[in-house]
Amino acid sequence: MTLVYFFGQGKADGNAQMKSELGGKGANLAEMTSLGLPVPAGFTISTRVCMDFLSGGEKFPASLENEVNAALRNMEAAMDAQFGSQESPLLVSVRSGARVSMPGMMDTILNLGLNDAVVEALARKSNNPRFAYDSYRRFIQMFANVVKGLDAHILEDALENLKQHRGIVDDTELNSQDLKHLVEDFKAIYLRELGEAFPQDPKTQLWAAISAVFRSWNCNRAKKYREIHNIPENWGTAVNVCAMVFGNMGNTSATGVCFTRDPSTGENIFYGEYLVNAQGEDVVAGIRTPKPLALLQKEMPGVYEQLNGVRLTLERHYRDVQDIEFTVQEGKLWLLQTRNAKRTTQAALKTAVDMVSEGLLSKKEAIVRVKPNELEKLLHPTLDPRAHRQVIAKGLPASPGACSGRVVFDSKDAESWAARGESIVLVRDETSPEDIGGMHVSKGFLTARGGMTSHAAVVARQMGKSCIAGCGALHIHIKDKYFKVGRIEVFEGDWITLDGASGEVMLGKVSTREAELSPEFSTFLGWAKDLGVMNVRANADTPRDARAAREFGAEGIGLCRTEHMFFDEARLPAVREMILAQNKQERARALAKLLPFQRQDFVDILKAMEGYPVTVRLLDPPLHEFLPQTERDMHNLSTQIGIPVDEIRMRVAQLHEANPMLGHRGCRLGISHPEIYEMQVAAIAEATAQLHAEGVNAKPEVMIPLVGHAQELKWLRNRLEGLAAETYKTAISALSATSTSDAIPFGTMIEVPRAALTANQIAEHADFFSFGTNDLTQTTFGFSRDDSAPFLKVYARENILTDDPFAVVDQEGVGQLIQWAAEKGRASKPQLKVGVCGEHGGDPRSIEFFNQVGVNYVSCSPYRVPVAILSSAQAALN
Amino acid sequence: MTLVYFFGQGKADGNAQMKSELGGKGANLAEMTSLGLPVPAGFTISTRVCMDFLSGGEKFPASLENEVNAALRNMEAAMDAQFGSQESPLLVSVRSGARVSMPGMMDTILNLGLNDAVVEALARKSNNPRFAYDSYRRFIQMFANVVKGLDAHILEDALENLKQHRGIVDDTELNSQDLKHLVEDFKAIYLRELGEAFPQDPKTQLWAAISAVFRSWNCNRAKKYREIHNIPENWGTAVNVCAMVFGNMGNTSATGVCFTRDPSTGENIFYGEYLVNAQGEDVVAGIRTPKPLALLQKEMPGVYEQLNGVRLTLERHYRDVQDIEFTVQEGKLWLLQTRNAKRTTQAALKTAVDMVSEGLLSKKEAIVRVKPNELEKLLHPTLDPRAHRQVIAKGLPASPGACSGRVVFDSKDAESWAARGESIVLVRDETSPEDIGGMHVSKGFLTARGGMTSHAAVVARQMGKSCIAGCGALHIHIKDKYFKVGRIEVFEGDWITLDGASGEVMLGKVSTREAELSPEFSTFLGWAKDLGVMNVRANADTPRDARAAREFGAEGIGLCRTEHMFFDEARLPAVREMILAQNKQERARALAKLLPFQRQDFVDILKAMEGYPVTVRLLDPPLHEFLPQTERDMHNLSTQIGIPVDEIRMRVAQLHEANPMLGHRGCRLGISHPEIYEMQVAAIAEATAQLHAEGVNAKPEVMIPLVGHAQELKWLRNRLEGLAAETYKTAISALSATSTSDAIPFGTMIEVPRAALTANQIAEHADFFSFGTNDLTQTTFGFSRDDSAPFLKVYARENILTDDPFAVVDQEGVGQLIQWAAEKGRASKPQLKVGVCGEHGGDPRSIEFFNQVGVNYVSCSPYRVPVAILSSAQAALN
Repeated sequence: MTLVYFFGQGKADGNAQMKSELGGKGANLAEMTSLGLPVPAGFTISTRVCMDFLSGGEKFPASLENEVNAALRNMEAAMDAQFGSQESPLLVSVRSGARVSMPGMMDTILNLGLNDAVVEALARKSNNPRFAYDSYRRFIQMFANVVKGLDAHILEDALENLKQHRGIVDDTELNSQDLKHLVEDFKAIYLRELGEAFPQDPKTQLWAAISAVFRSWNCNRAKKYREIHNIPENWGTAVNVCAMVFGNMGNTSATGVCFTRDPSTGENIFYGEYLVNAQGEDVVAGIRTPKPLALLQKEMPGVYEQLNGVRLTLERHYRDVQDIEFTVQEGKLWLLQTRNAKRTTQAALKTAVDMVSEGLLSKKEAIVRVKPNELEKLLHPTLDPRAHRQVIAKGLPASPGACSGRVVFDSKDAESWAARGESIVLVRDETSPEDIGGMHVSKGFLTARGGMTSHAAVVARQMGKSCIAGCGALHIHIKDKYFKVGRIEVFEGDWITLDGASGEVMLGKVSTREAELSPEFSTFLGWAKDLGVMNVRANADTPRDARAAREFGAEGIGLCRTEHMFFDEARLPAVREMILAQNKQERARALAKLLPFQRQDFVDILKAMEGYPVTVRLLDPPLHEFLPQTERDMHNLSTQIGIPVDEIRMRVAQLHEANPMLGHRGCRLGISHPEIYEMQVAAIAEATAQLHAEGVNAKPEVMIPLVGHAQELKWLRNRLEGLAAETYKTAISALSATSTSDAIPFGTMIEVPRAALTANQIAEHADFFSFGTNDLTQTTFGFSRDDSAPFLKVYARENILTDDPFAVVDQEGVGQLIQWAAEKGRASKPQLKVGVCGEHGGDPRSIEFFNQVGVNYVSCSPYRVPVAILSSAQAALN
Repeated sequence: MTLVYFFGQGKADGNAQMKSELGGKGANLAEMTSLGLPVPAGFTISTRVCMDFLSGGEKFPASLENEVNAALRNMEAAMDAQFGSQESPLLVSVRSGARVSMPGMMDTILNLGLNDAVVEALARKSNNPRFAYDSYRRFIQMFANVVKGLDAHILEDALENLKQHRGIVDDTELNSQDLKHLVEDFKAIYLRELGEAFPQDPKTQLWAAISAVFRSWNCNRAKKYREIHNIPENWGTAVNVCAMVFGNMGNTSATGVCFTRDPSTGENIFYGEYLVNAQGEDVVAGIRTPKPLALLQKEMPGVYEQLNGVRLTLERHYRDVQDIEFTVQEGKLWLLQTRNAKRTTQAALKTAVDMVSEGLLSKKEAIVRVKPNELEKLLHPTLDPRAHRQVIAKGLPASPGACSGRVVFDSKDAESWAARGESIVLVRDETSPEDIGGMHVSKGFLTARGGMTSHAAVVARQMGKSCIAGCGALHIHIKDKYFKVGRIEVFEGDWITLDGASGEVMLGKVSTREAELSPEFSTFLGWAKDLGVMNVRANADTPRDARAAREFGAEGIGLCRTEHMFFDEARLPAVREMILAQNKQERARALAKLLPFQRQDFVDILKAMEGYPVTVRLLDPPLHEFLPQTERDMHNLSTQIGIPVDEIRMRVAQLHEANPMLGHRGCRLGISHPEIYEMQVAAIAEATAQLHAEGVNAKPEVMIPLVGHAQELKWLRNRLEGLAAETYKTAISALSATSTSDAIPFGTMIEVPRAALTANQIAEHADFFSFGTNDLTQTTFGFSRDDSAPFLKVYARENILTDDPFAVVDQEGVGQLIQWAAEKGRASKPQLKVGVCGEHGGDPRSIEFFNQVGVNYVSCSPYRVPVAILSSAQAALN
């Protein structure tokens, strides 16, 4: 098996496909060489050698030495220079290069091949002794540190001493004599500290450097990096040994970086920067300001022309935007690296769309190029990258988007501040449905408790607002209206800024950039829609959300919650009257007051989604969520509706639940208080009739929540289906119109394990299933989403759970139930429609799984719709 | 197909096996006839006719009339009398008789065949005109009411008027003339009210009566009864037409009921009572006191001898205790019915054991005879059946046993009242682990909330105390220390009595009978143990419970909870210190204080269960359960342990959970606070070493709660198993003893769906699985056991769920997970031991399911152990 892959003079043993053996850098150097591009000759030692070396007691395979020697001879021939020669010396760089880029994590050695004799030859040949000795002292420093592990400070100190002694500040002020002395000092220190002389034999230097680079695969920072980025330990790194070229040999030399298109905007312009008479390190050090690439056209028109040719060749060859490193040595262009360019989402989108119209890519290829999660960034304001930030805490990035506002601790305060025209951020331990009014007028929410699927997080994503949740460092003193983070106190009215994408909480007002959708955005999404198998709907409770979702590409509403409608200020009294009713008559009276409101809700939302299905979930939360919890609020309610406060208090106590999540809610409530669902279904039927009479194609679906037993659904459907049909008929004839629709479909959520386990029975009574993956995750794991943040943190740290199961669907457990339910449900009813309306409906990895399982549609918050559309397309293409 | 089954003169078309066609009564009449016993001749019309009649517009099959006429002719021949004859008239009874007894639910007509002419003949032949006319007026009354639906009051009023007019009180004082007039009045009223004359044709009477009896299958009370007792609607009733015999024809006539053994004690004595010159109705009316059967031997020695012969014949034939109705007509014995006798549990047990020693039954047959649930009654005090009771409310019968005590509303009050020697009953909205001290000293618990598996219920069953839970009628005013039920107020210190078996709450002190175990009890349980495949263990947390469980037959402890140990007054401060600790050191210090307590706990309980396995579940509840919740208690704690009350309040708020059931508990706590489990495992290892050194065969097993992911168990086992081994080794050598045991087994509870779904992975790290069916039911259904009572009531009423899933395991849903987990677990580890330690471990129907699934053992509260042993045996026999 080949261990060493040579490249040079237009020929290469490797190619771009061999990243797993040659690493990214090595594979691309080989590829560029084969393309006939000017790459300094060199060779790559395979990653396999690395793993053998590290696991086998740091021994090299027997055949390696011969292969390296042969490759070295080829390099010498290609570069017309000899390793160790005093005539025409060949210097080399020794660099790491793993399958994926791990920038700065492993070691590099430059200028290898210099010794006391060769440095003289280099000085002569370059006619630049300063350059030669500076290269030599750098090499000694690197070698001592990287290969021999000498503390970097020791040689740095010697350099500093010299500079002090000479009374200068910059290294560049040292002349060749200074550097020559410095080299002598370095060698003396080397001998003293390491007990051996600095090796003069270039081969000795080379093998030591190769070993050191391989060894650096296991250094701590590389390990940490791999852990964070999920890079397997057994990939290993390749070693690239490459002929040195120098951009610092005078004014006909230069070094630079360029991109084949603008990585920030995606515009098809040649973008980059360079420095004349400089080395790559100088660019990094930032001492001199690089010039824009356009200037190169004037300064070195020939080189520029050649480079522009390279740009076109590489982009056409790789069919992707390239990030290229180059050096010009005495007028000759050398390419040191090319790779796919990192870019902003805007750029990725524009590039993908442009490349399709340029014929470089097919639509399918373009679709696969963009990461779905990136798309959401385009829909939200972002922080101005240049603005100063004082980060005071970090929580969970629960809903993206940046916002600034004045701190308010109470929902009612929020409403009055907002009424005065203030921008506000609502800060709470956690939010509840009661806060919906205050949330509506806030720019963003910051909570001390709760996870990625807490109430605040879900509502924020729904509304497209920023949210940082579970920010444990916050200590909120609600009475005195301030919070404390460490020693910092933030009072009501103080400005803060949230970055919902990073979870960072900042003091003061940090300026933001508004979101703006490009034409490429809709072109791109259109392709994705065509390619996806699953439809994408939105979770939306208001006409405003419905319109936003539609604009972002949603084809219907998969989850229209009705509880938020009940919290509206105008309705809450009637809702509370209904709950406090002593008998059916009283309850019916209260519900009759709610009916017109609900009907209007449905008219508006069905109209906004005309032509697409709108799945209305009947009331889900337990009744106690609608009752006041504090003494003050109970007194207010008592005076408002004339029921003694004692009675209210008793009813609140009666309705109290130890575990509301597992309590008297969903269809359980629908069965014990059938009047509620009857009112809702009547409202849906009347709204539909009204719209049909107006010629609007309203397509409602009724969804029963929390079913766990077929009898529950059967009982409710028996009760509601006829009512819906009757009400519709009556309303249509009252409007002197004729029915234009089939019966309203009835379906159920699958959100407790028992529903999944008995899906075949439940399907007999359902036209559709919609997986409520939030609750299904809660019950399958036995995790409360409001309470699991503290231990999920520990689980992540201890690698017990690598993904948050509320963010990425747990395929092993929850996924088994989903798959089983979809199969059993369809076995019992082949035409059963199957959807997902939990938070996972907007997560790319989860969507891929849903696609595999054969789900018909996913539904997610409006701002995740583009993400879901792209994920669905990619899943279909995989 | 035969529709009519004749019996008489020693021959019968039917037999005892044909209950589904002939009903219980008809089948046994046929059987007795075939046995040659003196049964009045008659015939049974099949239940099939009933269902055809009811579903087919009340029409009879074409062939029925001929079959009835033929049977009637056979009756006439057998009884030497003719239907409608004025010489020797045959009178008949027409009775219902379903497959199972539905006492008093359907209709009966007696003396059918009488008319104006026949009554005269009867008067002549019996030489008793009063008897004849009394029979006639009764027949008219019954016929008018049952067949024609005439309001019973109308004829009753006529009778009353006559009595007033004659100035008498008892019917018996009416003479034959009076009755003759009454008959005339009745007929007149009949004509007036019904618009038709009372039918004189016996055949017309007969067909009308048959129709009416069939129709009574669908009367409201019969329907309700079937609903309650789960009797299928489509069984139908048979009709038995039987020759009338009369026990009221003078002093050589009599009527009575007898049992082949004493139904109360099971003693093998002939037991019964009779009345001379009386009819069955007279016994029911209770006007005269019946005589004990022994007297019959003196009064009618021949009849007694004959009856005693019948007793032996029937018991040997049926091999079960019989309940026999008989009539003596002018010295001749007639048998009217036999059936298996209802009896007390004591009697059932004694009879079963006696019959085995008498050679009547095999052990297996005896085992099947006793209902497992009955056994528990033997272990608890019961109410004196003769005592007066004032029932004021009814709740769920959560833990059997009767008790009286003075009402106390607070756990601490309970302790001080008990310390004064008072008997007390703890009354609360619901109990929590904090109440454990007060519960310990109470006779029983009464709660307004919670279901059959609420905290109070579980603890009560564990401790063998009475408990009535979810008594919604109770309004507890905790501040003023009284509760209200309707208009009744019960104050602290008032006496109440609970019947935990019925759920009845009574005012005052009702006397009770102590439980007493008979020698037959242990004989019987011994057989059951031998026959069962599954072992039975107990859920026990204290040496006292462990000893009780062992006495009741438990072979080990399947669930030893450790949290109750933490609530002990002596330990709670250290527990709270541990929770409030600011760092690992402080926490370790607090845990070090707890270690000696825990060690002693384990020493005691392992000793009590010597030789049997004791499965110790590591700490399960969330930490906030151990912290004070009221301001007063927080202040107390603050002064007690010197931590500022602000800090305590903040920690309490921090630990607050929205859904504690799904929160930071079980292994989640074990992973985030590993020191706690380490302390517990060390205590187990040290206790085991100590006992082994003393020569006691202690067999602990460590059980990790709430595992949902294999990684959780792996992480904890990695951390704890070595510690256990090391600690044991160190402790054994410190005691200069040598190790006598294998490693302590480690296992896990399977109590969330995800654990069941991924059982194959979890089994890799477990020596045993123990299904926590309470929590598994909660999470599979999404039902909180503390909050589900309100809607489960509705579900039962609406037939959505017929069984409470917390009482009887839900085979369709939860059962699927159990079966899957047992299979997958064993596929991954064939020697895996599988048990059940939820409440269902003591439920017969659930146990049958567990046996099918191949569970190795069930574990239940000590007082359910005999029930479980018998259920396990019956399951194995099925």
